[in-house]
Amino acid sequence: MKTVGYAAHSADSALKPYHFERRELRQNDVAIEILYCGVCHSDLHTVNGDWGPQPYPLVPGHEIVGVVRSVGPDVTKYKAGDRVAVGCMVDSCQHCDQCEHGEEQYCRHGMTPTYGSPDRITGEITQGGYSKHIVVREEFVLRIPENMDLAKAAPILCAGITTFSPLRTWNVTKGSRVGVIGLGGLGHMAVKLAHAMGAEVTAISRSKAKEKEAIELGAKGILASSDAGAMEAATASFDLIIDTAPVKHDVSIYAPLLDIDGTLVVVGQVGPLEELMTVPLVFGRRRIAGSLIGGIAETQEVLDFCAEHDVYPECEMINIDQINDAFARLAKGDLAHRFVIDMASLTA
Amino acid sequence: MKTVGYAAHSADSALKPYHFERRELRQNDVAIEILYCGVCHSDLHTVNGDWGPQPYPLVPGHEIVGVVRSVGPDVTKYKAGDRVAVGCMVDSCQHCDQCEHGEEQYCRHGMTPTYGSPDRITGEITQGGYSKHIVVREEFVLRIPENMDLAKAAPILCAGITTFSPLRTWNVTKGSRVGVIGLGGLGHMAVKLAHAMGAEVTAISRSKAKEKEAIELGAKGILASSDAGAMEAATASFDLIIDTAPVKHDVSIYAPLLDIDGTLVVVGQVGPLEELMTVPLVFGRRRIAGSLIGGIAETQEVLDFCAEHDVYPECEMINIDQINDAFARLAKGDLAHRFVIDMASLTA
Repeated sequence: MKTVGYAAHSADSALKPYHFERRELRQNDVAIEILYCGVCHSDLHTVNGDWGPQPYPLVPGHEIVGVVRSVGPDVTKYKAGDRVAVGCMVDSCQHCDQCEHGEEQYCRHGMTPTYGSPDRITGEITQGGYSKHIVVREEFVLRIPENMDLAKAAPILCAGITTFSPLRTWNVTKGSRVGVIGLGGLGHMAVKLAHAMGAEVTAISRSKAKEKEAIELGAKGILASSDAGAMEAATASFDLIIDTAPVKHDVSIYAPLLDIDGTLVVVGQVGPLEELMTVPLVFGRRRIAGSLIGGIAETQEVLDFCAEHDVYPECEMINIDQINDAFARLAKGDLAHRFVIDMASLTA
Repeated sequence: MKTVGYAAHSADSALKPYHFERRELRQNDVAIEILYCGVCHSDLHTVNGDWGPQPYPLVPGHEIVGVVRSVGPDVTKYKAGDRVAVGCMVDSCQHCDQCEHGEEQYCRHGMTPTYGSPDRITGEITQGGYSKHIVVREEFVLRIPENMDLAKAAPILCAGITTFSPLRTWNVTKGSRVGVIGLGGLGHMAVKLAHAMGAEVTAISRSKAKEKEAIELGAKGILASSDAGAMEAATASFDLIIDTAPVKHDVSIYAPLLDIDGTLVVVGQVGPLEELMTVPLVFGRRRIAGSLIGGIAETQEVLDFCAEHDVYPECEMINIDQINDAFARLAKGDLAHRFVIDMASLTA
């Protein structure tokens, strides 16, 4: 199937239109016309080569929402016209213990990312959602709940599941005391989701500059990490901290904020943190953990949860020809929302 | 009560005999004649001032085994002649949530360490077990099981509980895959205890030099951290790693050894670790935690467990006038055992 997208052709060139082929449908494939695609900071990191060399030309995008156009003969869950979504993975071995209990993101043989990775059958490089169409095996296609706003759903597929999964893993529920470091794409979703779960949420940020915004998202306020007195007063006051800071930073200043047995989960920075001070860990059995997106069943769960609780990312809609400007703004940071590409703006 | 011990009089002087008073028995106090006291690396750190200035003269020692000589009028659990023990704590608030569920080591108001800390009532500085007698409130006195070898029991009070507690917290049981970094006082007990719980234990050390020793302790062998191929082959092969290395080191090289959702628990180093790489945490939901000794009930449990499973520390008995030499050997490291002072060698 011929399609068109926006691709990076090297680590330092702007994205530009790119005509390419999507594979013919296999027995269990679903062909999707993409209506919206979220813009994740990792799209930028990947095309820039920050995480290693890439197989250019590369079409990024893994927060994909659209409509089924056709299905392979063995597909049972979807039919043409269904509103569907695709997230950060498009395949996995489907047989290991992790896949079997619904944690495909930790597949023993490595899951297949939505873009930039060899297809498990043909070896051709997967291409992402900054495009008109995508073909994905049925098991990795999600269903958009009936009452969900399609235009705003896309960021749930990465920013949503990445923060929802640790909230579930660490059993956040009514009354849980949750801190959220950072208020960007991931952080603002973490605040909304934890609040919708009934948690008492505090945003943790350098200053209180964004406090009004944080409260609107569902936080009770901001704890300013630059305020030594406030930090001291907040010792042992969180059950869980979701750390979305996407740069090298010092988690040791946040660890004392955790209560005994509390956990700080890193979901932003993929790389080094500063030296880790063990004192707050030892003297409170505190933990530092990481977490990667979520499994397919859990991704469906967060879509359903968001539809049920009317939780949506803050979205700024853009046309695809604005993507390079959006990348530039993203690189500067400090956006408490997600860009979403309206794919109607992409014409062949 | 007049007694005698060995005390440090400054950060840089040798320990020497010191005559001092133990308090008169309060209603709920137990007076103990000390028979044996283990020598913990933290005794050395403390008297050297490595962890901050100390109230000299200071009698170290928190692995204490002895016999009850007399009891206060409200004491119900112990009587003269009972074989008892005292560990790293001698008091706590007894009312906070942590104390109430038996985790006095994490007392909200701070537990009282066995030496070097103000008594909660009089403010006089607690003095430890390198001495002939000690007076401790009943709630912090442990019972030595009937069939237990008194001379070898002392190191269970710190090295034992410090490694037993995380093995219990992280649910080690038959078939658990446990790694132990370091084979010193803590590490060799971790191997023995995990083995006695039915775990499959691997010692992790720079080289295989001590493999015979590790196998005798109950490990199936040594994984050499200097062998890149062996480390790679051991990826995701541990449920839990007990990290007893007492110096600044890089836990990021061990994190990939953990299986998905596995935890590395730091019990040795109280201070900084090297920069923490988040990749193995994020891509396997792995965790780095700390753990501090254990509560009183759990300390009784490890004594009972060791008696039942015939697990004893490797002990080298010394006379108290050898303590400064023992400290010197401890400072050099590399001892796969614990020094225990035979307090019969201390005469007034």
